[in-house]
Amino acid sequence: MAGKAFKSFLPLFDRVLVERFTQETVTKGGIMLPEKAQGKVLQATVVAVGEGSKGKNGDLQPVSVNVGEKVLLPEYGGTKVVLEDKEYFLFRDGDILGKYVN
Amino acid sequence: MAGKAFKSFLPLFDRVLVERFTQETVTKGGIMLPEKAQGKVLQATVVAVGEGSKGKNGDLQPVSVNVGEKVLLPEYGGTKVVLEDKEYFLFRDGDILGKYVN
Amino acid sequence: MAGKAFKSFLPLFDRVLVERFTQETVTKGGIMLPEKAQGKVLQATVVAVGEGSKGKNGDLQPVSVNVGEKVLLPEYGGTKVVLEDKEYFLFRDGDILGKYVN
Amino acid sequence: MAGKAFKSFLPLFDRVLVERFTQETVTKGGIMLPEKAQGKVLQATVVAVGEGSKGKNGDLQPVSVNVGEKVLLPEYGGTKVVLEDKEYFLFRDGDILGKYVN
Amino acid sequence: MAGKAFKSFLPLFDRVLVERFTQETVTKGGIMLPEKAQGKVLQATVVAVGEGSKGKNGDLQPVSVNVGEKVLLPEYGGTKVVLEDKEYFLFRDGDILGKYVN
Amino acid sequence: MAGKAFKSFLPLFDRVLVERFTQETVTKGGIMLPEKAQGKVLQATVVAVGEGSKGKNGDLQPVSVNVGEKVLLPEYGGTKVVLEDKEYFLFRDGDILGKYVN
Amino acid sequence: MAGKAFKSFLPLFDRVLVERFTQETVTKGGIMLPEKAQGKVLQATVVAVGEGSKGKNGDLQPVSVNVGEKVLLPEYGGTKVVLEDKEYFLFRDGDILGKYVN
Repeated sequence: MAGKAFKSFLPLFDRVLVERFTQETVTKGGIMLPEKAQGKVLQATVVAVGEGSKGKNGDLQPVSVNVGEKVLLPEYGGTKVVLEDKEYFLFRDGDILGKYVN
Repeated sequence: MAGKAFKSFLPLFDRVLVERFTQETVTKGGIMLPEKAQGKVLQATVVAVGEGSKGKNGDLQPVSVNVGEKVLLPEYGGTKVVLEDKEYFLFRDGDILGKYVN
Repeated sequence: MAGKAFKSFLPLFDRVLVERFTQETVTKGGIMLPEKAQGKVLQATVVAVGEGSKGKNGDLQPVSVNVGEKVLLPEYGGTKVVLEDKEYFLFRDGDILGKYVN
Repeated sequence: MAGKAFKSFLPLFDRVLVERFTQETVTKGGIMLPEKAQGKVLQATVVAVGEGSKGKNGDLQPVSVNVGEKVLLPEYGGTKVVLEDKEYFLFRDGDILGKYVN
Repeated sequence: MAGKAFKSFLPLFDRVLVERFTQETVTKGGIMLPEKAQGKVLQATVVAVGEGSKGKNGDLQPVSVNVGEKVLLPEYGGTKVVLEDKEYFLFRDGDILGKYVN
Repeated sequence: MAGKAFKSFLPLFDRVLVERFTQETVTKGGIMLPEKAQGKVLQATVVAVGEGSKGKNGDLQPVSVNVGEKVLLPEYGGTKVVLEDKEYFLFRDGDILGKYVN
Repeated sequence: MAGKAFKSFLPLFDRVLVERFTQETVTKGGIMLPEKAQGKVLQATVVAVGEGSKGKNGDLQPVSVNVGEKVLLPEYGGTKVVLEDKEYFLFRDGDILGKYVN
């Protein structure tokens, strides 16, 4: 698998491009959340993946998530990337905490 | 063993998802413990495990704990993960101090 | 591939020489952007590449971008290189975030 | 040797569980030692051992001390573990300074 | 290639001895440059090379520049070496940014 | 060579137990040296050695000094060990500067 | 080559014992140099060498200088060693900048 591009953007090495879920602005009880109370959204969808990185014995290790999967991001880190005026974030495969499987 | 998910959440690499034991609020002698005196609970149950990490020679090394086992957590570290409104914690396999075996 | 020079300059090892896109001084709506508001240009074209670096098992690993490709640079880092009075920048292959593929 | 548990607690990887010798409260000449003058006890007995850690070439390296051996602990480090209301300490095998052999 | 000495001085391992180009004291337009405005000269000629360094798998890796080649030095680093009252500079092969090829 | 104990104390891994030479309190000219002027004694005799440490390829590398040899210690470092009320010092094999050979 | 001792002192591993050239106290023009103006002497003669150190693949790598050779020392570093009331200095082989060959 030689990595998958998104909007013609291909992450390099073991980088993964994700789109964060949209921010919840209303609590389950229907109460409007002020901006400050809206924490960072840590769930996201994978939109593009690099081809992976060279392991300790020189073999290519593909990234461990696939395009379309839902993932849980760490609190910190990530590089913002704007594609066609929309915000995405680049993370290293190893920094992604986990993924949601059905 | 390709890792085990919990509530459809699968930790990545050598991460382990645990649920801390419930906090003791009463001493053995029956005295109510004020919140401050209730230290952090360091015992926990493993609820999900990643598939493991690549060892120095490139082989996959599964994590050393299994779902359902009781473990002893370090004082510090761990990442909070909320699943269905409940708190769980992600630790690296190597940071878990030990496990309780019968 | 033994690396590709540009204006007779050959980067060494896994370094990549890039030319940043020209700075947008007018917004899409046609409004002049004051200097301060013009952020750093992070898109660039690869103009020269080193031959690559030795991997963990001693094999030569070529760089992962080619001359002519469009790439996304990190916010920080890079070494300025002036060739024939024009500014270029040297980055390590591993620091380039991604590339634009058609 | 897959590690040895103690009071059903099994240290993980190359961790070693020890019980410090009891504190000397009286000098050889029979004089009571005030608490402050009683330094930390650095001699201890090994009560449980992990299975060891993966060496650089991937083989499992068992820990270098056995249950029941007397060891000399470093001045600092170690993690307190309470089992059945008694204090024990976890050290990495590599941090234990030496052992007493007959 | 067992390294090449210069004025009987042989750099060790992967060190490279260079002589910086002479400082431009007059601008192209013929204006005298005050000392302060004369930046550090980053172009240099290789005058001696060490035999190289041992790679990760133990093989000898010769340096990537040859005596007589023109190179681009990093802004910082380098050790001054005076040979027969003239200033030269020692750099590690890996720190040299690039070389000028015809 | 599985390491050599001293007063039933066996250093672990690549640790070496040494006894410092006695402090010179009188100069060669016969003048009494005040305590402050008596520098730290850096010469010592090896009294016990660990079995060594695992090298990069997993083989056991014995320590490079033997019991009974005279060695030169570094200015700093070393862990004090009291055996039968006498002071000894533990050093890592790699930190010992040299040894005196006849 | 198992290393070479000097005045019965054998450096360990990849350490090299050198004797600095004597300090120039008079300029070429015959003017007495005040102590302060006499920089540190960076040229030295190798008087003893350790047997070398284990390379990444476990083989013994002898040091790259020989007894009797003239070397160029780095500005900083080195450990003073007094043998028979005379000052010598211990350097790691890798820290020696270069050697003078005829």
